Amino acid sequence: MTGHLPAVLKALDSSRDAALKRLFEVLRIPSISTDPAYKQSCKAAAEWCVNTLREIGFDAGLRETAGHPMVVAHDGPRNIGRKPHVLLYGHYDVQPPDPLDLWVSPPFEPRLRVEPGNGEVVLARGAEDSKGQFSTFLEALRAWKQVVGELPIQITVLLEGEEECGSPSLPDFLTQYGKEISCDLALICDTVQWDKDTPGITLSMRGIVGAEVVLTGPNRDLHSGQYGGPALNPIHSLVHILSSLHDSEGRVTVPGFYDHISEPSSDRRQQLKALHFDSAAFLSDIGLSQSAGEKGYSALEQLWMRPTCEFNGITGGYQGVGSKTVIPSKASAKLTCRLVPGQDPDEIVASLERFIRSRAPRDCGVEFRVNQRHRAFAFDHNTPHVAAAAKALQEEWGRPAALMGAGGSVPIVASLNQKLGMNCLLVGFGLDDSRIHSPNEKYNLTSFYKGARSWARIIDQLARIM
Amino acid sequence: MTGHLPAVLKALDSSRDAALKRLFEVLRIPSISTDPAYKQSCKAAAEWCVNTLREIGFDAGLRETAGHPMVVAHDGPRNIGRKPHVLLYGHYDVQPPDPLDLWVSPPFEPRLRVEPGNGEVVLARGAEDSKGQFSTFLEALRAWKQVVGELPIQITVLLEGEEECGSPSLPDFLTQYGKEISCDLALICDTVQWDKDTPGITLSMRGIVGAEVVLTGPNRDLHSGQYGGPALNPIHSLVHILSSLHDSEGRVTVPGFYDHISEPSSDRRQQLKALHFDSAAFLSDIGLSQSAGEKGYSALEQLWMRPTCEFNGITGGYQGVGSKTVIPSKASAKLTCRLVPGQDPDEIVASLERFIRSRAPRDCGVEFRVNQRHRAFAFDHNTPHVAAAAKALQEEWGRPAALMGAGGSVPIVASLNQKLGMNCLLVGFGLDDSRIHSPNEKYNLTSFYKGARSWARIIDQLARIM
Repeated sequence: MTGHLPAVLKALDSSRDAALKRLFEVLRIPSISTDPAYKQSCKAAAEWCVNTLREIGFDAGLRETAGHPMVVAHDGPRNIGRKPHVLLYGHYDVQPPDPLDLWVSPPFEPRLRVEPGNGEVVLARGAEDSKGQFSTFLEALRAWKQVVGELPIQITVLLEGEEECGSPSLPDFLTQYGKEISCDLALICDTVQWDKDTPGITLSMRGIVGAEVVLTGPNRDLHSGQYGGPALNPIHSLVHILSSLHDSEGRVTVPGFYDHISEPSSDRRQQLKALHFDSAAFLSDIGLSQSAGEKGYSALEQLWMRPTCEFNGITGGYQGVGSKTVIPSKASAKLTCRLVPGQDPDEIVASLERFIRSRAPRDCGVEFRVNQRHRAFAFDHNTPHVAAAAKALQEEWGRPAALMGAGGSVPIVASLNQKLGMNCLLVGFGLDDSRIHSPNEKYNLTSFYKGARSWARIIDQLARIM
Repeated sequence: MTGHLPAVLKALDSSRDAALKRLFEVLRIPSISTDPAYKQSCKAAAEWCVNTLREIGFDAGLRETAGHPMVVAHDGPRNIGRKPHVLLYGHYDVQPPDPLDLWVSPPFEPRLRVEPGNGEVVLARGAEDSKGQFSTFLEALRAWKQVVGELPIQITVLLEGEEECGSPSLPDFLTQYGKEISCDLALICDTVQWDKDTPGITLSMRGIVGAEVVLTGPNRDLHSGQYGGPALNPIHSLVHILSSLHDSEGRVTVPGFYDHISEPSSDRRQQLKALHFDSAAFLSDIGLSQSAGEKGYSALEQLWMRPTCEFNGITGGYQGVGSKTVIPSKASAKLTCRLVPGQDPDEIVASLERFIRSRAPRDCGVEFRVNQRHRAFAFDHNTPHVAAAAKALQEEWGRPAALMGAGGSVPIVASLNQKLGMNCLLVGFGLDDSRIHSPNEKYNLTSFYKGARSWARIIDQLARIM
């Protein structure tokens, strides 16, 4: 390794309190991208990122979009001669914090607490997903610039503000600014480690299609005694349609849903087995005893290599205290399909909409809104940058990095790959027990500190092998 | 008729403005019985009733219950010699007004407006159900007392405060105060006319069973990417269970649901036909073109003589703006079954609960709460008091009263009949287009004014034939 790395790591260790203070600053900004009420907070979070990157020594600014702005930062003028050129990606927006009453402390007032098994953790919405995560590479960049004055590779930073609502503005942004952010490789910090002591490199992620279905029956809410019987009840139609989306084997019944999906190769199945994934522990951690997913596949295969159709929300009629004998005029549901390689989001949307409309009774109005659609991806693990990252992570964590898949979706990856032909490397320091998207989201301090050290090492490794 | 009636009717006609002012007073009190937040408002409405009855000349007071108080009023000391003794029943509580945003004016700020076909109407929550309705007999009593000084029959008034939430305190009240309110006959004003120009006497009503089902899957909300597949989704389980409650013929599939129900007799079917019910108009008024109910029965049969299982509310997961990729920990639904004679509420509750629990997956927690259960009833129409009411109504409205059934439930009727062996006569002046339980509930002024006149006549008729 270069002579610089030890000093950089030392700088990171000695600036932990300042780093934590910076993380708390950005966690206090409620940048909930899916809710228009928080537009200004998203802007504020973006500006915090710009100022922080400038402080580090980057040429940073906002790029306006139809939605929340993108943050783009370069380490000085673009220098084609200087190889390699790497893009670091993260997102500054967060999920809504509700249900609020289940938080032990306010979601946007970060605090430290000790959790059995995890030691000290940061508690806040976005603590891991993804403010804690992108802060790891911001701290690594800061240390390199402070200690060495310059970075061993050329780096551009992209921080998005709409990852949690399906990245609606990303396609237009890539069309307009693709040239500016196009690099040899994208490093993305939005994924998990294998476990709290074992790092991971994520090589595949599921895609996603998100939709909302609104059914309308009577032209107004009705008295269930006065109209019950003849009157169409949209909740009845909704549960009938939703329940027909899965068969008794847990398979999705939408025609063509599984076309073009290849079965896990026996090699890959062996790799998965070799990870000794404890699915019983995985399930019992969330209070369950058996997998509710597609029959014939292990929990890990269901998570990484099989598509789903999930109901994320359902609403209709009276939901207050006590009872109300009403037949509601409307009922609606939010659903998302997780996709795997081979599935075309547009085709899935089209057949899902056909499936739902064809099952609605004649008097039932159907509104079908699509709010996100992104392909799945899977990268080859036999590449020099995977090897570089694996080496750096092993040196930091003292054990080999697991080559993982992921059940979630990071829209940017498929887009960078398909639109700009960029290779992506997903290294993150999240953990499955971090309650992201749930009340009391946390980020282990070890993830935060060793994550920053890991990025310092990865940058160093990339400098020498690419 | 006695010499008094014309003067009484004249007094009613000349006191319309004062009567409307009194109605507006009580409509301004948000006595929502199902929501504990409105306990004080319910008390206030009860006290308004007591003061009004005292003003009329009744000996009125509250009877405390475990829930909202009952209002009981006597016309002077109980006089066994004086026949007949009639109980007038109404309720002062109302349904929740939500969804609030659909009201054209605040639900508890009553106002008049003109509606095509209905003329002037009172717009407010409770305008018809049931503050407008019980005000018709309060005004009739007031006029009789004012003009004559005494009533031609002995009358006791009972105003309940929990009718809209299933009358939970009624059984205990009847046990404790049954003797005090026990009469020869109960007159109940909580039903509809046949149409705005034709009065009606209701001889049968459906019973009701109300329940709430809460399903619990994971021990916390989960990220649908991180856990989607293996994790049990309680919305999925809920829609699966609810959708299995009906078959493709619209019949309820709960075992034993239709046992002990007798088919409509050909006589009764003929009576219904003779009413020339316009089911196309009934449906198009609520924006529908065809009956969604049980196959093989007319809309009127479905409403009056067949049971239902309705979903009144469903909720789970994210319901805010935009999307949230969550697998919720809980999902729940509120449902009510309308019962017909022959169905035992306790048996229906038991088999409904068995049905639901038996279909929940192993890891799915099931909470089943029953919030109301009341039998259906059907009275014989060959009785002197039905004849008396029919005569009085025909004299007021100039056309014969329709002998009707009703799809709704008035718990008091079954209770008075079973617990105190009382016969009941249901005469109301509501209309199917009054949007009770919905936004913009209204009561026709003709219903209010001619309703009061009708009660004055019914009291007069009962005095002479009983």
